[in-house]
Amino acid sequence: MSQPTDPNGAHNPVIVLVRPQLGENIGKAARAMLNFGLTEMRLVAPRDGWPNPSAGPAASGADIVLEQAQVFDSVADAVADCAHVHATTVRKRGVTKPVLTPEEAAREMATMAGRHAILFGPERSGLETDDVALARTIVTVPINPEFGSLNLAQAVILLSYEWSKSRDLAQPTSEELLPPAPQEELDSMIGQLEAMLEPCGYFRPESRAQATRRTLRTMLTKPAWNHLEIRTMRGVLSALARGPRDD
Amino acid sequence: MSQPTDPNGAHNPVIVLVRPQLGENIGKAARAMLNFGLTEMRLVAPRDGWPNPSAGPAASGADIVLEQAQVFDSVADAVADCAHVHATTVRKRGVTKPVLTPEEAAREMATMAGRHAILFGPERSGLETDDVALARTIVTVPINPEFGSLNLAQAVILLSYEWSKSRDLAQPTSEELLPPAPQEELDSMIGQLEAMLEPCGYFRPESRAQATRRTLRTMLTKPAWNHLEIRTMRGVLSALARGPRDD
Repeated sequence: MSQPTDPNGAHNPVIVLVRPQLGENIGKAARAMLNFGLTEMRLVAPRDGWPNPSAGPAASGADIVLEQAQVFDSVADAVADCAHVHATTVRKRGVTKPVLTPEEAAREMATMAGRHAILFGPERSGLETDDVALARTIVTVPINPEFGSLNLAQAVILLSYEWSKSRDLAQPTSEELLPPAPQEELDSMIGQLEAMLEPCGYFRPESRAQATRRTLRTMLTKPAWNHLEIRTMRGVLSALARGPRDD
Repeated sequence: MSQPTDPNGAHNPVIVLVRPQLGENIGKAARAMLNFGLTEMRLVAPRDGWPNPSAGPAASGADIVLEQAQVFDSVADAVADCAHVHATTVRKRGVTKPVLTPEEAAREMATMAGRHAILFGPERSGLETDDVALARTIVTVPINPEFGSLNLAQAVILLSYEWSKSRDLAQPTSEELLPPAPQEELDSMIGQLEAMLEPCGYFRPESRAQATRRTLRTMLTKPAWNHLEIRTMRGVLSALARGPRDD
C-alpha cells in the first residue's frame, strides 16, 4: 500500500471515522480533507456499509478520498500500523490523557515521527470510552460552552486545516528519536501482560475487569514507547513469566 | 443597537454574507459562528429575501444569530459602522491589498481597535471586485491548489475558529493531569521490578548488568507516570510476584 507523504517525507495523518452513520457525512468529511491535502480515510464499521451511494455527491469531487478509503471492523485494526493515535472529543472525559487543541495536535503531527491517526466518533454520540482508550492524546476543539454544535465534517475540516498550517514547520532535530512502535506491537505487549495477570486474579472481581484493563492500557499507552522499548518490556515480561532460574 | 463584546472590551467581528443564495447556507453559517461565540450576522441583499424558512433548521439551534441578523441593501451600508473590513476570497485578485491568512486576520481582530467586519461572497461566484474594493485586507484560506472546494459555512467556520483562538478566554476543557510521581516513588517501583528480575537471570551476564539497568530505567522514566499510575504498576508487579492463584 503506497502511503501519501508530505514533502518532508513524513506520513500525512490518517483520518479514521469510527462507526459513521450517514454516507453524506462521510462524503463531506472527504471533501473537508482534500481541501487541505489529506487523502487517507479509514472507516470503522460504517453503519450503512461501504461503498455508500450518498457519499459521492456530498464529496463534491473529492472522489479519490472515497475510492481509496479502507474499511475495518475495529478501531484497533484501523490504527494497527499507526504510531500515534489521537481521539477527538468535545466532552469532558474521565480518562486522564493529555488534552490537546487542534493546533497543538497539528504541531505534534508535524514534529513527531511515525504515522498519526485521528479518530472521529459517530455523528450522534461521539467516540466511546473504549475507543478513546486506544489513543494517547485527546484533541478537543475549544468551542462556545453554551453552544457546542460541531458536526463531523466541521471537526474534520478544523483538524485538517490546522494540520495543513503546521506542515510547513521546520522539522526539529529529533531524527535520532525513534517513533512510537506501531499500535499492533503495543497491543501484543499489553496482551502478553494481561495473559500473565489473568491467572494471578489481577482482573477480579469481574465487575471491575473492564475498567482495570482500561487503566492498564492508558498507563502503557502514555509512554509512546518505540519498538526497542516495547521489545525490552516484552523481554522483562518473558523473564518474569519464566520465573527464577536455578543455575 | 447593543453590540456583543468580549471580556476584553473589544467588539466581536461582524460576519457579513454578501448576496447569499440558499437559506440553508445562511443557517449553517449561523451555526458555525455560534460554535465559536460569534453572534452578529449581517446579510446583504439575500437572494430569496429575509427571513428565509430554510435557514432555521440548518442553524441547529443557533436561532439567536438568525433572529438578530440585520439586512442591508449594499455592502457599503452593511459595513458603514466598521473600522476594519476584510474580504474573504479563495481566488487570486488583481487588487493590490494585503493578503492575510485566517490566523493573521484573527490577530488583527484581536489587536487592532475598532469593529471588524468579514465579508463572504455568494456561494457560486464569491465576492465581486467592487465588494473587495471596500475592504482593507483580503483574507485567503490556503487550500489544496488542486482541490479548492470550500463552501460558505466552511469558510465562516474557519474564520470564526481562528478568531476564537486569538482570544485568551477560550480555554480548552483540559482535565488536570496529575504531575509525575516524585522520583523516590519511581525509584521504589524500579527497585521492586529489579528485585523480581534478578533471580530470573535478567541481568546476566554481569558485564551487561549496568547497561541493562540503565535501559530499564530510561524506559520507565519516559512515561512520566503520576503516583496513581506508579501505584497501578506496583500492583501489577505484586500480582505477578504472587503468581497464579488456585481459588
